[in-house]
Amino acid sequence: MKLSEMIGERFRETPSDCVVESHAFMLRGGYMKYVANGIYSVLPPLKRITDKIEGIIREEMDALGGQEVLFPVALPASLWEESGRLQAVGPELLRFKDRNGSGMVLGMTHEEAAVHMVREYASGHSRYPFMIYQIQTKFRDEARPRAGMIRVREFTMKDAYSFHTSQEDLDAFYRRCLHAYERIFARVGIPQVLSVASDSGMMGGSLSHEFMLLTPAGEDSIVLCPHCGYRANMEAAECILPTVPERTEQELSGVHTPDIRTIQELCGFLNMPSQKICKAVVYQRDRDGSWVIVFLRGDLEINETKLTNLLGEGIHPALLTEESGLQAGFIGPCGLPAGDLASPNAKYTVFYDRSLRGASGLACGANRKDFHFVGLCMERDCPDVRYHDLAKAVPGGICPSCRESGITVSRGIEVGNIFQLGTKYTHAMHMQYVDENGVLKEPLMGCYGIGIGRLAASVCEASHDEYGPVWPVSIAPWQVHICCLRSDNEQVHSQADRLYDLLGKEGFEVLYDDRPVSAGVMFSDADLLGVPIRLTVSPRNQKAGCVELSLRRDKSGSVKIPVEEVLPRVTETIRRLRGECRPD
Amino acid sequence: MKLSEMIGERFRETPSDCVVESHAFMLRGGYMKYVANGIYSVLPPLKRITDKIEGIIREEMDALGGQEVLFPVALPASLWEESGRLQAVGPELLRFKDRNGSGMVLGMTHEEAAVHMVREYASGHSRYPFMIYQIQTKFRDEARPRAGMIRVREFTMKDAYSFHTSQEDLDAFYRRCLHAYERIFARVGIPQVLSVASDSGMMGGSLSHEFMLLTPAGEDSIVLCPHCGYRANMEAAECILPTVPERTEQELSGVHTPDIRTIQELCGFLNMPSQKICKAVVYQRDRDGSWVIVFLRGDLEINETKLTNLLGEGIHPALLTEESGLQAGFIGPCGLPAGDLASPNAKYTVFYDRSLRGASGLACGANRKDFHFVGLCMERDCPDVRYHDLAKAVPGGICPSCRESGITVSRGIEVGNIFQLGTKYTHAMHMQYVDENGVLKEPLMGCYGIGIGRLAASVCEASHDEYGPVWPVSIAPWQVHICCLRSDNEQVHSQADRLYDLLGKEGFEVLYDDRPVSAGVMFSDADLLGVPIRLTVSPRNQKAGCVELSLRRDKSGSVKIPVEEVLPRVTETIRRLRGECRPD
Repeated sequence: MKLSEMIGERFRETPSDCVVESHAFMLRGGYMKYVANGIYSVLPPLKRITDKIEGIIREEMDALGGQEVLFPVALPASLWEESGRLQAVGPELLRFKDRNGSGMVLGMTHEEAAVHMVREYASGHSRYPFMIYQIQTKFRDEARPRAGMIRVREFTMKDAYSFHTSQEDLDAFYRRCLHAYERIFARVGIPQVLSVASDSGMMGGSLSHEFMLLTPAGEDSIVLCPHCGYRANMEAAECILPTVPERTEQELSGVHTPDIRTIQELCGFLNMPSQKICKAVVYQRDRDGSWVIVFLRGDLEINETKLTNLLGEGIHPALLTEESGLQAGFIGPCGLPAGDLASPNAKYTVFYDRSLRGASGLACGANRKDFHFVGLCMERDCPDVRYHDLAKAVPGGICPSCRESGITVSRGIEVGNIFQLGTKYTHAMHMQYVDENGVLKEPLMGCYGIGIGRLAASVCEASHDEYGPVWPVSIAPWQVHICCLRSDNEQVHSQADRLYDLLGKEGFEVLYDDRPVSAGVMFSDADLLGVPIRLTVSPRNQKAGCVELSLRRDKSGSVKIPVEEVLPRVTETIRRLRGECRPD
Repeated sequence: MKLSEMIGERFRETPSDCVVESHAFMLRGGYMKYVANGIYSVLPPLKRITDKIEGIIREEMDALGGQEVLFPVALPASLWEESGRLQAVGPELLRFKDRNGSGMVLGMTHEEAAVHMVREYASGHSRYPFMIYQIQTKFRDEARPRAGMIRVREFTMKDAYSFHTSQEDLDAFYRRCLHAYERIFARVGIPQVLSVASDSGMMGGSLSHEFMLLTPAGEDSIVLCPHCGYRANMEAAECILPTVPERTEQELSGVHTPDIRTIQELCGFLNMPSQKICKAVVYQRDRDGSWVIVFLRGDLEINETKLTNLLGEGIHPALLTEESGLQAGFIGPCGLPAGDLASPNAKYTVFYDRSLRGASGLACGANRKDFHFVGLCMERDCPDVRYHDLAKAVPGGICPSCRESGITVSRGIEVGNIFQLGTKYTHAMHMQYVDENGVLKEPLMGCYGIGIGRLAASVCEASHDEYGPVWPVSIAPWQVHICCLRSDNEQVHSQADRLYDLLGKEGFEVLYDDRPVSAGVMFSDADLLGVPIRLTVSPRNQKAGCVELSLRRDKSGSVKIPVEEVLPRVTETIRRLRGECRPD
């Protein structure tokens, strides 16, 4: 491909809405173009990258015995009704009506379609196990698309679904798939990806892992234990804090705290650390707007995933109206008005986070405007209370696995996930098979996803310098980038032409910049395109019968090589770079 | 792939809703599964076929210098507003709102997205010409999906868009693309596809061709001239009839025709051929419901495409209410009530088809219940009338190209189309470039489409027998199908295993049926899967050290070959079959 003919533009300025490097580089390098919020068109360089990623994923899925299929993008709503997700999933599931008024959805995941495809086929035990997968466009109507390809609304995804007749078989396949994922991430150039225990969320099921690339650009928080290697998504991580049982004999007494509403203000006013505050966080159920109050230690945050899982339904942060009977800023566990006192409709569900267990000498709201209590002793003042794990894990906390303290929290991008779904979908959708004894049973499912565009962006996050991406050779849009400086010089131009032809004939993927532009423009464009090997042809080199070879990742280390050695050197360099993208 | 492990079921009975063979075979052979009206999931055999078709198309598009990109499936409605198509296109464009209430559409074609992608890039003349293409899921909310993959709502399509600075350049590229299409159809195994002149419809532009596979299963009508080779879609074909100028001096006079409403009834009642009837066909404009009356010869049918093009807006068959002032069944050109007589809102537009030019001695409605006229002489009774070409061409008619009579009309499936769009989109969407003289100009566009699934179904229509598809080797899901009869016989089974391993290692695509099923089931499944080469391993063959080789298209001509000759024979046979899929 000649760069002079390739569509797309490259530019210097980072667009103002880019908060992560991959977003900026992919726009600046002409990889993609913004079409609408969270929706992009893909230009040739990114198309070539995603094609290669898809090729690697296909090989690994096929090696697991996966069978490639294709599910529809637009699905009948009735299928999602069967599984119960039409109701259960929020507005991220895009629902619409077709011209005949039939309810439809845009597929954001295809468990229902997978069950629909094989439900009749897999009616006998001898047809198990099997796995089907597709690489297809999905749509997820995200509230807040961000960071370019990292969180979009429309995306290409590989999603796989396996079916099993026993938990042992599912476990074994799940492990094989986990290893296949490790191979995939190693092959695309990010072997450092970690698998972490995760929350199953709307997918249902029991066991799940996310594959995380640790990077400050990530939007997920990962809890890591430096001692035992425990790792989990924040959503799924248990919060265990070092507790020093202390018992003060201070009495519960009211304090006038005019206009003191935030934890920070209260700490300042009372001269107490936030750990000594019993704070209230209020939510409302999505279903009926009823109130859910959680008390926890003032320095901690609620893990909404845990709260949702505990409740078994969706919630949102509360809007505290007068009707609620709650005194915003002054809510506390003692003397909380009963629902029927304030309003016959107000109903509270109250939960206590285990960070409060055994605590005393706490400050808390007095459920009265401008008043707080001090001297709260949980055991004494709130007896018969059950404590739940509802707080986010914090750095320095205790590892749920080895019980050592000192966990850390890092940011990460989720580049893939795998779930054991159990019988959630097969049960709901009446998929059954006859087992060896003629008994009808429900098969177990696993599902396995990788977002292709997000993976490309993640590789860019993991592998770039200040000038642009440094693509691993396994997914680079081209392998070799020829820069022809002074293409107006006929001899230089024809040497570059010959190189381009030669390497092309040998099967290398070559991008050839023969534009009459300055060396500055040419090199900064090459940096943005991130091709692993650069060959520079220039008047000086040409006269010396040489070509300059450099690697994108180490531009300072360029070497002059005689023209006749270009082919063996390129061949050898690519072989070496490929070796780095090989899984162990 | 072992057939025992492949998902999908094969069955004998043709589903009752299948009106064409490809639909029946693709369901019966486990190629696809119905999900919703016009929406299917694709199973492994069809996925493999479409992958190969896509590979062939990519090669031909790349050979034209095409650059592969990817446009979004879900597009902002604002983009279609820019081109004017948000209003102009009917309910087949699926419109919906996202969670923020923004208007969106599901892409059914991507002219707008293509212009959006390159509008800034191609601002200078030196960037032209270029062509971009994608292979992507589209959605078209068809009123009447039918015939399986032939008319669906969701489909995968290759759509390409070229951009030019002169009509000559567009013409030249258009011709190259036409030839590339001929190569594509030849390579997938249907070289008999014809390019025919077509109507540009909602795409706009001046010149367009459709690529037609002539088959009774088709839903398009193609007008063909056996003399000069003229061919056109019925929608675009001029209707020229042999006219014998005849002049009768019969006077216009009323006839009482009680309850005679149809042309057939009138012909019987008056004992006249339908050619001597001046029939009225009434439409209403989509926009305001106003009336459009077309008079034409009684034996002809309206070509609605021509009428729509003449009007420049959409129409639908009229619902004749009292308000219209029209006497259904008795409408004629003489004494048609003026709009304001019947109702102040009724407005008529009246057209005359040129089949009526110079005709006399006609019968027609008298615009009065139960009365017709006879003796209508167009020149005398309807003077000052302009005639238009509004009728469908009929077999035996005159060729618009060579003027010989005897055109024929055949059914065909449209497997591809190409359009010269001119500046329709670039003008509407303000895409401009600076030419050599510094003048701002609008580039010209061409667009080029092929539906992948429909093409697969079309090959099946063109190439099948009563038992199933006969796939050309270039797109067959596998090249070789091994049938292991009596797989319970250990020696037979191990011979088949060895063959499977051997051919697989040599790079052949092999489907291996090692199921413990009867020869009948095995062979009928093989017929449904349509793999070009079949190798049958059986106890008798195995004892003789032989394998039976047959071609799917000629099962009677099987030959026994020694096991050690299988590899060279298969290699040679595939080479020969491949040669048949080579364009001239």
